[in-house]
Amino acid sequence: MRGHSLMLQEISEQPEVLARAFEAERNHARAFREFAARQNFRLVVLVARGTSDNAALFGRYLIEWTTGIPVSLAAPSIYTLYRARLDLKRALVVGISQSGESTDVNVVLRSARRQGAYTVAITNEAGSTMARLADEVFLVRAGRQRSVAATKTYAGQLLMLYLLAAALGTGVQLDGVARIPRWVEQALALRETVGVLVERYRYMRHAVVVARGLNYANAFEFSLKLMETCYVVAERFSAADFLHGPIALVERDLPVFLFIAPGACFRTLERLARRLHRMGAETLLLGSRGAPLPPATRTLCIEARIPEVYTPIPYIVPAQLFAALLAETKGLNPDRPRFLRLVTRTL
Amino acid sequence: MRGHSLMLQEISEQPEVLARAFEAERNHARAFREFAARQNFRLVVLVARGTSDNAALFGRYLIEWTTGIPVSLAAPSIYTLYRARLDLKRALVVGISQSGESTDVNVVLRSARRQGAYTVAITNEAGSTMARLADEVFLVRAGRQRSVAATKTYAGQLLMLYLLAAALGTGVQLDGVARIPRWVEQALALRETVGVLVERYRYMRHAVVVARGLNYANAFEFSLKLMETCYVVAERFSAADFLHGPIALVERDLPVFLFIAPGACFRTLERLARRLHRMGAETLLLGSRGAPLPPATRTLCIEARIPEVYTPIPYIVPAQLFAALLAETKGLNPDRPRFLRLVTRTL
Repeated sequence: MRGHSLMLQEISEQPEVLARAFEAERNHARAFREFAARQNFRLVVLVARGTSDNAALFGRYLIEWTTGIPVSLAAPSIYTLYRARLDLKRALVVGISQSGESTDVNVVLRSARRQGAYTVAITNEAGSTMARLADEVFLVRAGRQRSVAATKTYAGQLLMLYLLAAALGTGVQLDGVARIPRWVEQALALRETVGVLVERYRYMRHAVVVARGLNYANAFEFSLKLMETCYVVAERFSAADFLHGPIALVERDLPVFLFIAPGACFRTLERLARRLHRMGAETLLLGSRGAPLPPATRTLCIEARIPEVYTPIPYIVPAQLFAALLAETKGLNPDRPRFLRLVTRTL
Repeated sequence: MRGHSLMLQEISEQPEVLARAFEAERNHARAFREFAARQNFRLVVLVARGTSDNAALFGRYLIEWTTGIPVSLAAPSIYTLYRARLDLKRALVVGISQSGESTDVNVVLRSARRQGAYTVAITNEAGSTMARLADEVFLVRAGRQRSVAATKTYAGQLLMLYLLAAALGTGVQLDGVARIPRWVEQALALRETVGVLVERYRYMRHAVVVARGLNYANAFEFSLKLMETCYVVAERFSAADFLHGPIALVERDLPVFLFIAPGACFRTLERLARRLHRMGAETLLLGSRGAPLPPATRTLCIEARIPEVYTPIPYIVPAQLFAALLAETKGLNPDRPRFLRLVTRTL
């Protein structure tokens, strides 16, 4: 079955999926830029659950950094259970959901609209409830997701957040976003390497994933994929929090996976990686050319020079490959995560 | 050594600490209410790290619910590493730190001030860097924290957030806040009960803590205390996320601790508790009178009728007692968490 899982297929489709989505939505982003300039949004609120929550966490960093507009990640219960009336005038509220049928997220969007917000849906389903109720839709166009573990839809949601950031500020350029599918292709070239690498982790039960800033969301996403498809209990930390305590729990058999991108967070992560290496810890670094990786047990380096702001989509790809191929090496079917199977059976 | 740890002493001091802090700061809250009315804040940003981060998470729910002002939890790296320039006009930026010497938090406050925000420090140290650099200080006045595990300072930070919420909206009343110390006293009456109860968990290595809404932060805080003082690996979830997958991992030997407060989140948690009970899972419910607890393996019920909005401080108290007394039952010294000892030794 090696190499034939739906998950691997969908991982491989990503350059094509992203290129298609970008072409279809780039003019939308340009038009939205003019609209946003007139609206002069003072706040962006992101709403999501599950894997889409990881995309929202990414959006939180991307939008604050590149547009200067403060961002809040909504707590759905404030709307669904407490029925709070928030002052959302001149706020842009963005729902993110693969299916567009997440009840909580839709309640938040509806309620935000009533409270004066302009609402945007980022979804893969043009006909979904969310797409209908939002003022505007950025359509992920990833094609049907057949694997249970989300890969191409996560990447597609991130892409739509880039388009939104390009519309709201100056830090993201459409020309740069246009190059992401090519970088993803270069990341996919690591597939053979990852296939060999995962042998080492056949008996891994626990792991730690560390990142910071723009790639912090990828630590959550990688750890979710490891849990969903490999039954590996993976804790994720920001490099800053990790240094404050949990680093003391690291031992020889607890590998630490680190995303090390060039740019603002490079020095912090480099120092952390060197320290772990000196402690004798097992480390795996995920990076790209242009930011030389420090010594580590293993490294996965994408052969491309990617500016920091565009690293998150290409960087998640080797992690997706890792989870899919490790699952196969463990004799598991990555298309049938235990979580969901158990939910069906037990409840 | 039973019952003589600094941690237990500081847990027991809380009614007195909270009453003193309330008396000292209540007029400050009144004055701040007038000031805030003139400022008409459109956004609250909370900044913290570690245990104080849990207090910030609580503040996020409390302030949005009771004031209608949107709240964002700041990502420090946006300020410290990316040096983003955010538009913070008419924003209230609140730093929370026990010592007032958290470098990251202070960088955010300084930078937010330059970007037009009004800044408030919630700290236990009147002479700290944070107290000096903020426009205004709400002083926790918990006395010196001698235990490594924070208890009274966490409760004190929550109390200051109530004063802030009372100044910014109408959902929190100073008369209600004034009653919190008495409810904490009633929670402390559970000490004997907890002392007997913890015997059951002598060999517990893993646990799950679940809550929602206003008490969600308490799930993080309880789990942090279990990790710090008992070496118990405790995962925390919102009840909503927990139902989406992790509930499937629950087995007979993985206890689930649930905070069940009366009010908006009661039904959700009650349903979850009933479902876990039917599955044969081991559950421990933490609640109070006025919201009848569903069937469970064990319950801890505070003998007081506490309105939902004021539950979080009293509700963390049985959890603090649990962590401190379980540590002793396990033969550990709760005043010397392994994390910090190891950091000192290893690095």
